[in-house]
Amino acid sequence: MNAPDAFKSPEAFHQYIHEQHMHGLWEISGSQNTPLPTPEAVPHLWPWSLMEQVVRQSCVTVPVGNDRRAMQLYNPGLGGRWATTNTLIAAVQVLMPTEVARAHRHSPAAIRFIMEGNGAYTAVEGERLMMKKGDLVLTPKWQWHDHGNEGNETVVWMDGLDVPLVKMLDAFFFERYPEVTAPTTRPVGNSQALYGNAGVMPTWVKRQDAISPLMVYSYDKVREALHALRDEEGSPYEGIALEYTHPQTGGPALPTIGNRIQMLRPGEKLKPRRVTGSSVFCVVEGSGRTVIDGKVFDWVPNDILALPSWALHHHENTGKGEAVLFSINDRPVLEKLELYREAAE
Amino acid sequence: MNAPDAFKSPEAFHQYIHEQHMHGLWEISGSQNTPLPTPEAVPHLWPWSLMEQVVRQSCVTVPVGNDRRAMQLYNPGLGGRWATTNTLIAAVQVLMPTEVARAHRHSPAAIRFIMEGNGAYTAVEGERLMMKKGDLVLTPKWQWHDHGNEGNETVVWMDGLDVPLVKMLDAFFFERYPEVTAPTTRPVGNSQALYGNAGVMPTWVKRQDAISPLMVYSYDKVREALHALRDEEGSPYEGIALEYTHPQTGGPALPTIGNRIQMLRPGEKLKPRRVTGSSVFCVVEGSGRTVIDGKVFDWVPNDILALPSWALHHHENTGKGEAVLFSINDRPVLEKLELYREAAE
Amino acid sequence: MNAPDAFKSPEAFHQYIHEQHMHGLWEISGSQNTPLPTPEAVPHLWPWSLMEQVVRQSCVTVPVGNDRRAMQLYNPGLGGRWATTNTLIAAVQVLMPTEVARAHRHSPAAIRFIMEGNGAYTAVEGERLMMKKGDLVLTPKWQWHDHGNEGNETVVWMDGLDVPLVKMLDAFFFERYPEVTAPTTRPVGNSQALYGNAGVMPTWVKRQDAISPLMVYSYDKVREALHALRDEEGSPYEGIALEYTHPQTGGPALPTIGNRIQMLRPGEKLKPRRVTGSSVFCVVEGSGRTVIDGKVFDWVPNDILALPSWALHHHENTGKGEAVLFSINDRPVLEKLELYREAAE
Amino acid sequence: MNAPDAFKSPEAFHQYIHEQHMHGLWEISGSQNTPLPTPEAVPHLWPWSLMEQVVRQSCVTVPVGNDRRAMQLYNPGLGGRWATTNTLIAAVQVLMPTEVARAHRHSPAAIRFIMEGNGAYTAVEGERLMMKKGDLVLTPKWQWHDHGNEGNETVVWMDGLDVPLVKMLDAFFFERYPEVTAPTTRPVGNSQALYGNAGVMPTWVKRQDAISPLMVYSYDKVREALHALRDEEGSPYEGIALEYTHPQTGGPALPTIGNRIQMLRPGEKLKPRRVTGSSVFCVVEGSGRTVIDGKVFDWVPNDILALPSWALHHHENTGKGEAVLFSINDRPVLEKLELYREAAE
Repeated sequence: MNAPDAFKSPEAFHQYIHEQHMHGLWEISGSQNTPLPTPEAVPHLWPWSLMEQVVRQSCVTVPVGNDRRAMQLYNPGLGGRWATTNTLIAAVQVLMPTEVARAHRHSPAAIRFIMEGNGAYTAVEGERLMMKKGDLVLTPKWQWHDHGNEGNETVVWMDGLDVPLVKMLDAFFFERYPEVTAPTTRPVGNSQALYGNAGVMPTWVKRQDAISPLMVYSYDKVREALHALRDEEGSPYEGIALEYTHPQTGGPALPTIGNRIQMLRPGEKLKPRRVTGSSVFCVVEGSGRTVIDGKVFDWVPNDILALPSWALHHHENTGKGEAVLFSINDRPVLEKLELYREAAE
Repeated sequence: MNAPDAFKSPEAFHQYIHEQHMHGLWEISGSQNTPLPTPEAVPHLWPWSLMEQVVRQSCVTVPVGNDRRAMQLYNPGLGGRWATTNTLIAAVQVLMPTEVARAHRHSPAAIRFIMEGNGAYTAVEGERLMMKKGDLVLTPKWQWHDHGNEGNETVVWMDGLDVPLVKMLDAFFFERYPEVTAPTTRPVGNSQALYGNAGVMPTWVKRQDAISPLMVYSYDKVREALHALRDEEGSPYEGIALEYTHPQTGGPALPTIGNRIQMLRPGEKLKPRRVTGSSVFCVVEGSGRTVIDGKVFDWVPNDILALPSWALHHHENTGKGEAVLFSINDRPVLEKLELYREAAE
Repeated sequence: MNAPDAFKSPEAFHQYIHEQHMHGLWEISGSQNTPLPTPEAVPHLWPWSLMEQVVRQSCVTVPVGNDRRAMQLYNPGLGGRWATTNTLIAAVQVLMPTEVARAHRHSPAAIRFIMEGNGAYTAVEGERLMMKKGDLVLTPKWQWHDHGNEGNETVVWMDGLDVPLVKMLDAFFFERYPEVTAPTTRPVGNSQALYGNAGVMPTWVKRQDAISPLMVYSYDKVREALHALRDEEGSPYEGIALEYTHPQTGGPALPTIGNRIQMLRPGEKLKPRRVTGSSVFCVVEGSGRTVIDGKVFDWVPNDILALPSWALHHHENTGKGEAVLFSINDRPVLEKLELYREAAE
Repeated sequence: MNAPDAFKSPEAFHQYIHEQHMHGLWEISGSQNTPLPTPEAVPHLWPWSLMEQVVRQSCVTVPVGNDRRAMQLYNPGLGGRWATTNTLIAAVQVLMPTEVARAHRHSPAAIRFIMEGNGAYTAVEGERLMMKKGDLVLTPKWQWHDHGNEGNETVVWMDGLDVPLVKMLDAFFFERYPEVTAPTTRPVGNSQALYGNAGVMPTWVKRQDAISPLMVYSYDKVREALHALRDEEGSPYEGIALEYTHPQTGGPALPTIGNRIQMLRPGEKLKPRRVTGSSVFCVVEGSGRTVIDGKVFDWVPNDILALPSWALHHHENTGKGEAVLFSINDRPVLEKLELYREAAE
């Protein structure tokens, strides 16, 4: 169609501009200028009872080769996208004794939260980080890393990465290391010895950037911290909730992924709230229930739950002891871009 | 399918886990773990010769009602998404004398870059910002704003917003003002009188946040600055390139949208480079050519050009005088999230 | 005295500990733990009528040799200390046509505020900064600098340095350049061309530290800025007061010396206030009065006035036109050390 | 003398300007523009063998009344100024069982480093901070504080304050609390429970300023950290040296006083160095020697040593076990003001 013809009727005008890759704001405003966020991701829970079976069978069916034996949790609302929420992918990964998962690096950042078993390690930039149940291990962006299991237990962990975010930003880079493993250059425990002491920092190392130099956050210490705070009031929306922080800035441990752990005391029922940004929870201890936009998700240890942006949600402890939830979120992204909001009902 | 059956064959195993919203990393790694970014957005140029006709006809065909008369530039590679690049939407908006575009606010941030005509204004949070050809006018996120044209020229500008980014982050909020226009509470020119003086700042106003308090950047002054620097070497990739900055931080004028203007001197041919992040260029003066991944885009004033992430590109001035390009980009986002990279060939 | 003897009486005890370089807090608390600051510096005004005569005669009596022809203003309360206030030294320096003041550098920072004459320059780290009446010129710490007068007017300026502060901190370093002048490596006007454009910054130079890269603040522009703001309310204590800022941070132009300029409109009488930290004022335009702890100081252009910490003071314009005061202060120091306070009566 | 007479001879000119509170730079430059810092403070050691006797006798001779029983260490070079170095005052304070030292606050900041005894507390802003041997306890500026000893041991600690700095800056404020003690509003251990967990921070309390919210740094943990790092190379000038940090910023625990602890391994002899800024050391464990500008100071536990600015100094361990030195310094001040320098020989 040429322009003179195009301009004979509103219909022709619109057809013409569409052909030219233009659309009138008046055509889309009604559907697009929504008052509130309209996430495609849905709340979803993957029960451990299911994941455990799958994990066990994957050890039989799938070898650890160039790729890890990691079951990616696909959000049912995201149409087959590699994503647990709009910005985060979580997976359940398993490594059997003697196995090694090949070294690589990528521009997305990753965390590991250990669900079952001890004795495996993640090696990051030359340091072997030992993984124990409940520990959080960081794999910052673009650092060479591999995993190995030199113990005699099968080890299962949750991976959390910002792959969907980095893909959306067209900033995804991936590289395999030429060898199976990258060389070890620092002693085991080095990151914790240097940076894992509250309130004191070494003076002879100058590293300070947006990425935490503390690479392992031991559950032993975190659990102790949670219990020492059990008589505090805490947050009405999160209970006794701790943020895993960069020990030199107090900011998030990673620039793009927030990590939290929260304890709900026996009988504690938190208040509902909405926040911009999405989260993935992994149950650490106890049992309870999360209600998301009216839908109830009951949980027990190792269940994994996806929470979309701006969904009204609250947690409650329905068991007899403490309930502990670990979670990853994209709140550091929302905050840095000045898009974080929250609203209580 | 139940678990016991599922585990009888690899095929059944995979079918089963897919039904449970899990996918093996080994199934997708080959296609997803790409060494480099693979943007769906394509380079594309909207010529002014086309846009001018459309703009003129839109004044006949489309009223300014609740929505603006703004032609959204849809990237041909993005499958009908409201997006000029993965993170940015650009549009060409026209306002005729006496027209008013209704007040509203939204969580995406916006800029206006004036292409044709003088005499219109954008009112933001109570201050009328007068728009002259070549000026940059900010509309930070969530600030009430309306547009009006009290002059006697038809005024055309490029809108630039981070709508696709904010949508991807599920943080899109939109609200109409109850009246057609929000009240004026500050004198015309206030933002420039307070914050538009290089090297001096008022001491009796304390506003300081991530959003620039300087709301209009006059082309008169910017052009003078460009010419005063014409004997500098400049950047081999960008020439004499200036970033529009927050006058109290030196950071980007808006937290999520970078704004740049660059001058190519007669005969100047810049070097090719790739960067993470996308841009939209609007030609201000002169004529020239941009080559993107081998494809040539010749341009003249008011042409608009989309540049995807990680595309190899360079600009050259093919005219007799200076060529000046204004552009918006998502580099502040990439930098804040530690995902910015560049690579020269 | 030995310990056993010393401990026979309170008097002997006290004599003994004094000999050992110890003093009981109980001995000094009454005199030392004062509720409010007790500066030794006193308010003092050096009239231009006096300084002008001295300046003129100094040109006859004193050659410009290795040291500058700079009359240091000694605070009468500081017992002969090289100091105009506890932390700042101000001086009046004169340079006649063809004279050159030898290159050197020092750890104290310096500013020059031009009182009379045009045509001289301060060369700082390779750039000649041209000095016009009313301009502020920076000489940051430890940068090679020399002065020259290639015009045909005698040029007089106020020096302002943080010498007393740096001496108190035992961090005073001084070095003469091996030649009379250091070489020129950058064109005249470079600092202003690069960094003197409100709201735009060059992208190809990466310098960003605590010291402003803008080295000259022209009175032409500053005066225009003051007048453009004359209808603003301004500060009740300072009137229309502007801080000379680092254009990339909005912070003070120098890490240790604050620089301000304030306009009092005809008839304007400001409110009294106390602040921690001291200032030295230089009258730029008009006539008025400053009352400090009840003592009246009337002033006309080029008068210089010392204001000690925590003194109750206010300014008023007693002339017919605008009155303009330039001042230096140590407020950046007080603020960085979290010791800044203010109290209005 | 009047001006015409004054200008008849250079001598008369100089006499005249001195009367007018002006001095020629040419008159003072030779003595004042020194190439290097010339501190008046001298290196000095107060041996514990002396201080212990004095402390014991002070309990007999001096009551704890409105003022504390604190022996101020006066630097022999500073002419009776209330100062251990140019910027810092150290004192040895003793509190016997059942004693209370009255509540007050002041603009100088303070630290306590416990030398002998357990069971006393410092109450700061409503929280009782329990003091054990080797602990560091903060008393940030302008916070109400009192001390008490409810145990059955005599407790001795080193006070460290920035009184001389704050006095020089004419920013000294002091206020007594109307009662003997300020009320307790937070449980014992609260600051450590909230902020003493490496790598995790409470999310429901938002306090974040330049002052560390962690108020007690336990020697138990610090000593463990030192020993865990004993196989690291450490600093050639400081050995295994840790900075007490603000757990949310990695910066110094207080804005004006740096706190360090360093371990010298058996046989370790550090390299000599000069730094701008002064320190006061308190020996925690072991025995050794510090050489300052050629003068030898041998030390054993609880000895206190003053180190002036820019003095060439090194430490060495002359004992059989580890030697541990705690120290306070004004380096945060020097660094904030961009005056920090160091030079190794």
